[in-house]
Amino acid sequence: MARAFSSLSDFAALLRDMSGPDAAATLGARARDAQLTKPPGALGRLEGLAEWYCGWRGEAEPRVSAPQVIVFAGNHGVVAQGVSAFPAEVTAQMVANFRAGGAAVNQLAALVGARMDVEALDLDRPTGDISLGPAMSEDEMLGALQVGWDAVDPTSDLLVVGEMGIGNTTSAAAIALALYGGDAAVWTGRGTGLADAALAHKARIVAQSVAINTASGAGGLEVLRRLGGRELVAMAGAMARARVLRIPLVLDGFICTAAAACLEVEHPGTLDHTIAGHVSEEPGHARLLQALGKTPLLSLGLRLGEGSGGVLAMGVVQAALACHSGMATFAEAGVSGG
Amino acid sequence: MARAFSSLSDFAALLRDMSGPDAAATLGARARDAQLTKPPGALGRLEGLAEWYCGWRGEAEPRVSAPQVIVFAGNHGVVAQGVSAFPAEVTAQMVANFRAGGAAVNQLAALVGARMDVEALDLDRPTGDISLGPAMSEDEMLGALQVGWDAVDPTSDLLVVGEMGIGNTTSAAAIALALYGGDAAVWTGRGTGLADAALAHKARIVAQSVAINTASGAGGLEVLRRLGGRELVAMAGAMARARVLRIPLVLDGFICTAAAACLEVEHPGTLDHTIAGHVSEEPGHARLLQALGKTPLLSLGLRLGEGSGGVLAMGVVQAALACHSGMATFAEAGVSGG
Repeated sequence: MARAFSSLSDFAALLRDMSGPDAAATLGARARDAQLTKPPGALGRLEGLAEWYCGWRGEAEPRVSAPQVIVFAGNHGVVAQGVSAFPAEVTAQMVANFRAGGAAVNQLAALVGARMDVEALDLDRPTGDISLGPAMSEDEMLGALQVGWDAVDPTSDLLVVGEMGIGNTTSAAAIALALYGGDAAVWTGRGTGLADAALAHKARIVAQSVAINTASGAGGLEVLRRLGGRELVAMAGAMARARVLRIPLVLDGFICTAAAACLEVEHPGTLDHTIAGHVSEEPGHARLLQALGKTPLLSLGLRLGEGSGGVLAMGVVQAALACHSGMATFAEAGVSGG
Repeated sequence: MARAFSSLSDFAALLRDMSGPDAAATLGARARDAQLTKPPGALGRLEGLAEWYCGWRGEAEPRVSAPQVIVFAGNHGVVAQGVSAFPAEVTAQMVANFRAGGAAVNQLAALVGARMDVEALDLDRPTGDISLGPAMSEDEMLGALQVGWDAVDPTSDLLVVGEMGIGNTTSAAAIALALYGGDAAVWTGRGTGLADAALAHKARIVAQSVAINTASGAGGLEVLRRLGGRELVAMAGAMARARVLRIPLVLDGFICTAAAACLEVEHPGTLDHTIAGHVSEEPGHARLLQALGKTPLLSLGLRLGEGSGGVLAMGVVQAALACHSGMATFAEAGVSGG
């Protein structure tokens, strides 16, 4: 398939050229909400969710009927530095588990009726060790962006992108540090379960990765190239494609949000079609959401990745639209007070 | 139908005689969780939810396959004191809306695949005005308890009880004040949308109701009789029945939790088969959950009642059990690290 963009500048130009939500649909949704059989505001955040969704879909009374979950997987050279509690072969083993339907995200996707796709990106060819140099070349990055871009089903009406990649919380922490500064330790978490000494080592690797790649202050896409992994890049590609297709997107955890943040730093407003599905236990996630100005829907102590928290939150978005588009109005129901 | 209990003392005795969760199923669930293809603890609160559910159902790998939502409706004499932004006839109008499928809770119940029942309790005969005397006699209370008791489908495997009753946040606030003390104002909220002056008036009515019924320090069931409404009593009856039938129950908002608190104060431990589905915007709700030692699953700013927040949380419980009982183990999936 032909590439959608021939260079990172092409992709950056595309981000700058994206349109916003449909103002008429947003206003139509707000007008409908005021007529529904409930006190104004009584559905809390569900009301804002419905309005946001209507705006992006360009409809005043839509339903979520074709949700899609895509899990991207990649391997990371930085695992050679001992930054993960699990060995690198687990990435491929979990991809097989996703394909066989045995992982958490499979159960959650089935529950919300979502189509689920799995994209493994060159698992036998890890990205460069970011503690020693850049993760990938521009050409490698364009290839991974394209995988994400192509994985989005244009007929989907709600998207979650998740990931699997042993070592990728190190990548996400380095991205966050490069984009927003601060101390490496505040962005570095236990991932799949590091003990204290290994956690301190991981924070040093994160700091070294940002320093050696001179990534502080670089543009968002350049930070993603130097410190990301293929699955993070593919997530970013899918997020951009969803924006072009006007498919609302629910962000998952720390790694997904780090990939998203690169787009937002590259061009503010790029994430307007996204919401934060949840805040994870990985400590950098709450800080990252705060930097993006996103308030998470759920806070259930998840720290699994795979898109799991995003898919749980998909259920809340479905609920918001089921109420918005399914409820009777005061006039229809003959209820006083409308 | 014959009554399940001939007096409130009978009912109180039943609360004292209830059994706990199945220890073997709880342990079996914990052992299974440790083998699932995820890092230990990575599903956060979903893991504890699954264990709790397994214990009450007495199975190590159950699914939620027959959820039930029951909405109880009642009218309140205290509305004569001007404590609600909506007129009393809205209770009956909303019952018609529930039956026609037009309310928020109908959409949410359909989304999680729950059976939905509506029980209207003597809407043309409001309870006594609690600011002047007790809400109901022992016989009236027994009748309402029985409605709740009988409404639970014994084949259900997850229950939410919701309510509709113009004026019932006043009743709930008076119950909370009688059970836990403090200032009437901290338990009193805007309900369906009172302005400031009306809110202060409502708090005075709440204080007067507790004082005139000499309800401070009374037993939980007696507080419920003097300050409750028929829908609150029916919810309590359904909660007790669910406990006997070992059906886990998700608490909804302020009014549902106030009814529940009467059972817990009457006999501590009675609510062990319940979880807090969400914390609502009604300010007394967070305090009430704290008094009960329950941490809410969701915090989405809802303040609608009807069981709406509880049904949203049902989806999270379903997700927890879908993961717990549907995921592959490390051995099954051939994943390293189990």
